[in-house]
Amino acid sequence: MKLASLRGGGRDGRLVIVSRDLARCLAVPGIAPTMQAALDDWDVVAPRLAERAAALEASPALPESMAFAAAACAAPLPRAFHWVDGSAYVNHVELVRKARGAEMPASFWTDPLVYQGGSDDLLGAHDDVPFGDEAWGIDLEAEIAVITDAVPMATGVDAAASHIKLLTLVNDWSLRNLIPGELAKGFGFYQSKPSTSFAPVAVTPDELGDAWRDCKVHLPLLSCINGAEFGRPDAGTDMTFNFAQLIAHVTKTRRLGAGAIVGSGTVSNYDRSRGASCLAEKRTLELIEAGKALTPFLKFGDRVTIEMRSADGRNIFGTLDNRVVRAGG
Amino acid sequence: MKLASLRGGGRDGRLVIVSRDLARCLAVPGIAPTMQAALDDWDVVAPRLAERAAALEASPALPESMAFAAAACAAPLPRAFHWVDGSAYVNHVELVRKARGAEMPASFWTDPLVYQGGSDDLLGAHDDVPFGDEAWGIDLEAEIAVITDAVPMATGVDAAASHIKLLTLVNDWSLRNLIPGELAKGFGFYQSKPSTSFAPVAVTPDELGDAWRDCKVHLPLLSCINGAEFGRPDAGTDMTFNFAQLIAHVTKTRRLGAGAIVGSGTVSNYDRSRGASCLAEKRTLELIEAGKALTPFLKFGDRVTIEMRSADGRNIFGTLDNRVVRAGG
Repeated sequence: MKLASLRGGGRDGRLVIVSRDLARCLAVPGIAPTMQAALDDWDVVAPRLAERAAALEASPALPESMAFAAAACAAPLPRAFHWVDGSAYVNHVELVRKARGAEMPASFWTDPLVYQGGSDDLLGAHDDVPFGDEAWGIDLEAEIAVITDAVPMATGVDAAASHIKLLTLVNDWSLRNLIPGELAKGFGFYQSKPSTSFAPVAVTPDELGDAWRDCKVHLPLLSCINGAEFGRPDAGTDMTFNFAQLIAHVTKTRRLGAGAIVGSGTVSNYDRSRGASCLAEKRTLELIEAGKALTPFLKFGDRVTIEMRSADGRNIFGTLDNRVVRAGG
Repeated sequence: MKLASLRGGGRDGRLVIVSRDLARCLAVPGIAPTMQAALDDWDVVAPRLAERAAALEASPALPESMAFAAAACAAPLPRAFHWVDGSAYVNHVELVRKARGAEMPASFWTDPLVYQGGSDDLLGAHDDVPFGDEAWGIDLEAEIAVITDAVPMATGVDAAASHIKLLTLVNDWSLRNLIPGELAKGFGFYQSKPSTSFAPVAVTPDELGDAWRDCKVHLPLLSCINGAEFGRPDAGTDMTFNFAQLIAHVTKTRRLGAGAIVGSGTVSNYDRSRGASCLAEKRTLELIEAGKALTPFLKFGDRVTIEMRSADGRNIFGTLDNRVVRAGG
């Protein structure tokens, strides 16, 4: 089942079921008006949504259905109550730290690293993304995220998997030149991690078929900058901590409310021929190989697209297609 | 005007207006069913709430009114979309860092320090607070917080003040023995800052009268542990960054959604006779003065109360009265 939130009808958008080919959609106000409402009561709501999804699939011209347009979408959760982003591709963390001249402790291979993100202003797949200054070092971070129902405190890895209700894609915009100063203060990211962009569609794990196993997504994540391919690392390869391990980590001292979003961190492969999911990684490799970072950060007007296709070429989550713009411009 | 969210009626609670003496309350489903709904449309909703608040004040026995009980309250926002906590009492930051053997950069006096907190599970004023292990170093942090409407990106200090719609009190529980390891990883707090407790009532700034000036609250914040006074620092004294400065800082690279909560950080005075608002500060002073931290962290069964009284002795926000308990116990 694929779900999206159309803009309008209030700050939380309007929940629709989306057909597998992303061509049609169906509002379901009688079942759940918003994605958050669906997640709040998932066990009851999901079977009812699945029934309507099957009807839409069986008859794309269902009278109440509409054409689906990614450009009409808000983020699946336009505002969420919890957004925590892991750094599950530890190979990426190691590289980026290297670029900052920071050593990575060995414990990073066994103890997940996460940061708490701001979740009140999540951006839609076609929204312009405003930044105050190009000098901040604007970077993409292409990632996968899961959305959970309510998760009890101290949930173990085995129990965590069943709390994953939806998956989606994320561009976790980062301001590289604000990061060193902010992290030096010791309290983590805040200004350096502005609002995050989301794919138009969130899908239930079964939509991924065999590509969803071991709580990882075994498919390439494609990022393009201004239409040119930037990276297509496989999200199932080199993921040190799977989503169940991330959830177990984040519930050590707290429970999660329904609709919590847990990110993978920048997808990254050891195989450098796959490219990268963020400029920081590419620049680090350049620094290591050529003694100098050559690829610039993003500029106003640049377009970043991110998508994931199934083995048979279908676009699973729709495409993030965001333009970097000057704030207030 | 004083507002609270009673438990029940869904995960966001049920908005009530509370009388100034905290004795009576009034549900207002026809105006706004929840605190978040009120904040989403504050300019329209607030005058209507104020009208009902005046009616309740004029006639405490208003037929639709009920007795108010802090124990029936969820947090004012039982789940919020954004919770960012400052460290505005820099004197406290300096001390606590000293205890960790960490130097504080001079820039901390001019550049606010904040961390992004988890906001999906905010605890009510009388809720038990579960922790997995006493060895984690369970500590209180008594603070003041403001709740904003939607705030644009790059809001300046002057414009920020008008976005402060409500104030409340916070106990930002901290797990001191998890902090050094977590901060060493570089991404800030996560496991070491579990769910936060809130006062039963949030109030509009005018409720504070003259005590609200310069975007600071000029009143003592009283914390007690197991009934014994622990601290009563004045929240208007030694606050290096006021709430407008904190809001200006957090909107440098993002806008805030309606209902964002911005905390002051642990209230702390140079005048040590006022006591402290967290055990870490008291332990640090002991370490400095006696060579050894003497006061233990909290234990299961300990009770922490936090409140603030006006110059004429009225309890402004109601009392946080939380018991520390063993998770799953």
